[in-house]
Amino acid sequence: MTEPLRADGRSSDQLRDIKITRNWLDHPAGSVLVEFGRTRVLCCASASEGVPRWRKGSGLGWVTAEYAMLPAATNTRNDRESVKGRIGGRTHEISRLIGRSLRAIIDDKALGENTIQIDCDVLQADGGTRTAAITGAYVALADAVRFLGVPQALTGSVAAVSVGIIDGIPRLDLPYEEDVRAETDMNIVMTGAGSFVEVQGTAEGAPFNRAELDALLALGEKGCADLTALQKAALDG
Amino acid sequence: MTEPLRADGRSSDQLRDIKITRNWLDHPAGSVLVEFGRTRVLCCASASEGVPRWRKGSGLGWVTAEYAMLPAATNTRNDRESVKGRIGGRTHEISRLIGRSLRAIIDDKALGENTIQIDCDVLQADGGTRTAAITGAYVALADAVRFLGVPQALTGSVAAVSVGIIDGIPRLDLPYEEDVRAETDMNIVMTGAGSFVEVQGTAEGAPFNRAELDALLALGEKGCADLTALQKAALDG
Amino acid sequence: MTEPLRADGRSSDQLRDIKITRNWLDHPAGSVLVEFGRTRVLCCASASEGVPRWRKGSGLGWVTAEYAMLPAATNTRNDRESVKGRIGGRTHEISRLIGRSLRAIIDDKALGENTIQIDCDVLQADGGTRTAAITGAYVALADAVRFLGVPQALTGSVAAVSVGIIDGIPRLDLPYEEDVRAETDMNIVMTGAGSFVEVQGTAEGAPFNRAELDALLALGEKGCADLTALQKAALDG
Amino acid sequence: MTEPLRADGRSSDQLRDIKITRNWLDHPAGSVLVEFGRTRVLCCASASEGVPRWRKGSGLGWVTAEYAMLPAATNTRNDRESVKGRIGGRTHEISRLIGRSLRAIIDDKALGENTIQIDCDVLQADGGTRTAAITGAYVALADAVRFLGVPQALTGSVAAVSVGIIDGIPRLDLPYEEDVRAETDMNIVMTGAGSFVEVQGTAEGAPFNRAELDALLALGEKGCADLTALQKAALDG
Amino acid sequence: MTEPLRADGRSSDQLRDIKITRNWLDHPAGSVLVEFGRTRVLCCASASEGVPRWRKGSGLGWVTAEYAMLPAATNTRNDRESVKGRIGGRTHEISRLIGRSLRAIIDDKALGENTIQIDCDVLQADGGTRTAAITGAYVALADAVRFLGVPQALTGSVAAVSVGIIDGIPRLDLPYEEDVRAETDMNIVMTGAGSFVEVQGTAEGAPFNRAELDALLALGEKGCADLTALQKAALDG
Amino acid sequence: MTEPLRADGRSSDQLRDIKITRNWLDHPAGSVLVEFGRTRVLCCASASEGVPRWRKGSGLGWVTAEYAMLPAATNTRNDRESVKGRIGGRTHEISRLIGRSLRAIIDDKALGENTIQIDCDVLQADGGTRTAAITGAYVALADAVRFLGVPQALTGSVAAVSVGIIDGIPRLDLPYEEDVRAETDMNIVMTGAGSFVEVQGTAEGAPFNRAELDALLALGEKGCADLTALQKAALDG
Repeated sequence: MTEPLRADGRSSDQLRDIKITRNWLDHPAGSVLVEFGRTRVLCCASASEGVPRWRKGSGLGWVTAEYAMLPAATNTRNDRESVKGRIGGRTHEISRLIGRSLRAIIDDKALGENTIQIDCDVLQADGGTRTAAITGAYVALADAVRFLGVPQALTGSVAAVSVGIIDGIPRLDLPYEEDVRAETDMNIVMTGAGSFVEVQGTAEGAPFNRAELDALLALGEKGCADLTALQKAALDG
Repeated sequence: MTEPLRADGRSSDQLRDIKITRNWLDHPAGSVLVEFGRTRVLCCASASEGVPRWRKGSGLGWVTAEYAMLPAATNTRNDRESVKGRIGGRTHEISRLIGRSLRAIIDDKALGENTIQIDCDVLQADGGTRTAAITGAYVALADAVRFLGVPQALTGSVAAVSVGIIDGIPRLDLPYEEDVRAETDMNIVMTGAGSFVEVQGTAEGAPFNRAELDALLALGEKGCADLTALQKAALDG
Repeated sequence: MTEPLRADGRSSDQLRDIKITRNWLDHPAGSVLVEFGRTRVLCCASASEGVPRWRKGSGLGWVTAEYAMLPAATNTRNDRESVKGRIGGRTHEISRLIGRSLRAIIDDKALGENTIQIDCDVLQADGGTRTAAITGAYVALADAVRFLGVPQALTGSVAAVSVGIIDGIPRLDLPYEEDVRAETDMNIVMTGAGSFVEVQGTAEGAPFNRAELDALLALGEKGCADLTALQKAALDG
Repeated sequence: MTEPLRADGRSSDQLRDIKITRNWLDHPAGSVLVEFGRTRVLCCASASEGVPRWRKGSGLGWVTAEYAMLPAATNTRNDRESVKGRIGGRTHEISRLIGRSLRAIIDDKALGENTIQIDCDVLQADGGTRTAAITGAYVALADAVRFLGVPQALTGSVAAVSVGIIDGIPRLDLPYEEDVRAETDMNIVMTGAGSFVEVQGTAEGAPFNRAELDALLALGEKGCADLTALQKAALDG
Repeated sequence: MTEPLRADGRSSDQLRDIKITRNWLDHPAGSVLVEFGRTRVLCCASASEGVPRWRKGSGLGWVTAEYAMLPAATNTRNDRESVKGRIGGRTHEISRLIGRSLRAIIDDKALGENTIQIDCDVLQADGGTRTAAITGAYVALADAVRFLGVPQALTGSVAAVSVGIIDGIPRLDLPYEEDVRAETDMNIVMTGAGSFVEVQGTAEGAPFNRAELDALLALGEKGCADLTALQKAALDG
Repeated sequence: MTEPLRADGRSSDQLRDIKITRNWLDHPAGSVLVEFGRTRVLCCASASEGVPRWRKGSGLGWVTAEYAMLPAATNTRNDRESVKGRIGGRTHEISRLIGRSLRAIIDDKALGENTIQIDCDVLQADGGTRTAAITGAYVALADAVRFLGVPQALTGSVAAVSVGIIDGIPRLDLPYEEDVRAETDMNIVMTGAGSFVEVQGTAEGAPFNRAELDALLALGEKGCADLTALQKAALDG
């Protein structure tokens, strides 16, 4: 029996069209436009000498990240957080996730007392913005450490993908229309070497059992491996 | 070969001393002091008729949660978020996690147009405050639905526990001193029926492989089952 | 003619049941749970070396206080000030009152360049939370100066009580149900030696005359003397 | 033995030069410039039909007050609270005091569903700004109730004065140079009929005994009576 | 005598390369990427039925605008206003300018009770971001009124350009390196019909005389006419 | 043909009654009450040694300005920005304009490392508050540089006036009732020597043509010259 085709014609374990465009802007040390289908995220890595005051004299570098969404990125316009005067919980959560994921493959000592500030701004949202952001931010980060002359500060690569169960079927890389229908939604962040950095699974509808969890993990491993290859190609290009 | 004892004498798959005290306060519909060893969280469930404006007329109820920490709860005093004028990312993240976890076992329709506001305030922190909060909040929530006369609004129970890898050994229910040393840290939220509601694993040090992930999941399943039994005893008591 | 009994059976000049429990938490230098009937306030004194920048090099110490109320402490849940993003006038006012009251019996010079941060968090409110807070905070402060090895920094003790006129009768230590009915409401802060630190009287209904003011002051003197004895017993215990 | 003269030549129970100028602005229903010596406060009463939402349909009016200080009002410039983005505790405290004091002589029912917003802005500060504000605000309020055609909404008048003990001597109406040296500082708000509305005494240095408190209350009664006469003259003028 | 060439080879009255790309995003009614040389601004027009509460029932529409800059848009990274928790004066000023400029060519009545929210987000900044924003926003607005089916709500077109005096020579459309050296800096907003909507001139260095002002106005008229032609071409394309 | 008289009987190129009162307060180095008809603005210049951190060691001084409006200054009470917790765009815009205007006639080097903080607080608003503020602030600034002993820090004087087109007729110095009816509104800031510092023209109704712009500029030149004479008289007085 064949499983039903997805609305966009992909098989269950297939990524959307992925594009990674480096040097998209002129100013920052790394700037990458990453596209997962219609999801488009601008990932910039601004490098500067020195570290925040609390880290001075440690000999260690610092990588941090901020995530945000442009007002017109979504189906219905979303209000600016600068106008609201406060950052929402979702934004905080994703910013922290991106920062942790990148720091997992950074050698603070090799980076030296330099700071790399990652900015991931969603230009258009169609599901999977946080995983696209991590995947693109890694490439921008790689450009930034080269710019700083410390490529050895990278101990590996990192990529991320969303997986979920829709109508009982585990699927890879969910666009918005699948994401809202998913019973379970999971974001998986892995190194290029195939280890896990973050696993975040949430039952949106019914709780999920161990077999479903295992199926989602397998899909995520597949998707991250594919993304790792695409990142490598972009950086070698 | 026997594995090394933990500092507090527990075996690797053993919970700390757990205490669940109901009706700890006089005013709210449910109020539970939950203790995981030295971690003490006050979980209150305030019930009120009516729902927020955006949900009016839907026939559905609403459960939401806020988490916070008293200034003197930690080793070194932490500043009040009310004084800082903004809520930090960690607080946001945990509040959202607690809310999602509880909504997973609530039947909004059976709840009717009532609101239950959960408040989890950490009186003393020694690791695992978010998992203790979820575990205690479930009991407060159960008291609140009884108070509202709609016990059928609960579709099950929910409990949570932290697991982690310390010195290469997977361990259950980490106190602060183990938490800071953990290479991998995972929070697992499960229903009493043994399904997963949330799985959040983070590599604090080196990334983790699939075998380690499986070991942690098994420990979490064991811990949540033990907590479910304790919740049941508390509610039957 | 005998005056009418109070709802809780007390005579007009009688305190509610007062409990003062020291070392209620593990981390801070002083931590006291104080209970005035159903009013429960957790008073912590966190001690640290050094003083704020503007006081450095002065040789003087610094004592400051913050007051807050848990959301579920009141009859009807009160919103968190951290969520609202601003501290209300009442909270500011009480924090300042507690700080001034404690500084009245502190010898800044004997304290040396140390800071003691007082946190008074109301766990349950039934009238008189600010006076309970001052009374309990003094005991926590006493533990903190001992912890710092400078018991001589205390020049005396301080306690506080509310008094008010209900149905024309002056009464001591008002619970919530009396407080809302009081025509005049007064908070009195006194040293153990019997001098006044603060006197704050407000006509909630009709203005009050000098005779009524004198009666309230006398009640307050009696109540503070009783509280002083209880504080002494707690600290000697 | 005669007591030492004050720096400005006044006797201990003498007010500073008091000026009350009505209709100082063109727009608001009442606008009064009140001067206590060099202290100058602009007190405006803006009247509008209707009441805040929570009071609608009650048939009752609403009087509220805000106090603020211009940046250049003080010896050394003070930062704007609008620029800081938050209102300080002192400002909150005084705004609430002014509002309570005025509401003590307002008959909400006679006022009908009208709102009077009082604004007290300190143009120049030389001690006693809050008592000058209350004294001037009453006159602006009286003009506003006349403007609204409900003069019967006033059940009396209200005035306020500061008293304090300097070098052991109780004194009336303290300018800044006395205020900073005062051992005890008290603000007294009284009705024109001679009853107390608020009594707020604070030991700035040593605690004060009952005899000192009595002396301060007597001075306050004298000062408020004098101010009442000046308010009456201004309103009759 | 010939005047010195500009660093980018343009003559004094020549615009930079201008590109106007419509439908740059999928969701909003109008979305335009406008480029003035290296300056790139994303201008979106989100259309929705209904107007803000204060305008309901008026039969009139509402157009409003917000301007912001991505962190990595500038030479040196600029901090996010959402993180700072407040919008800066410059941002406010430009948002208001864009809104006023667009409302000058909108017939509120013909628009009907619809709202068009303009968002101008600077992706890359190299001088003239506010004039590029106005020029691009007009095109997005034109797409949005077509989308709403009320093209007649546009009473004309609007474009904007910067002019300035550098080394004594008036120049059109300043890039950043000219902008920082300009003695006088002026932004001119004009309708397609050749009338002025806004004129904002500022002496950055020495004040300017009337002859210089006249020269700048002439340059601005020329630049706006050129931009009007480019807007027309884009909309006809 | 004679043009119609204005409501207040002035000719089109005539200023309102202008009053400039120096030393209106006791504390700041310069304090000026400036009146343009019924518009009254208190302009204070607070001088202090030292400059903000980012300017230390430069040998240069710093002049900055803040503008605000008292709540009762306007026809209908306007809410306090300190209470709203944020400064509005209009306030920001005017504060920046005043600061730029004054810095145009300050020699930072001659000022030395001193700071002058300008505060312009509108006591009563009847149109033209920003131009009155600039005109008065210059006089306060002149007093402040004398106070600091560096009168040579002034390289000239600065004044400002509003002009506008009402019913097709260009007019000088608009009161509120003309301002709201103006088709075009322009603020002009000029030095005493007759050069322009700022020109800000806005089409409130129909866009304006070049001839109208020229007429407004001529009126503004006339008005600023008159104001310069009045400033000089005030400073010489």
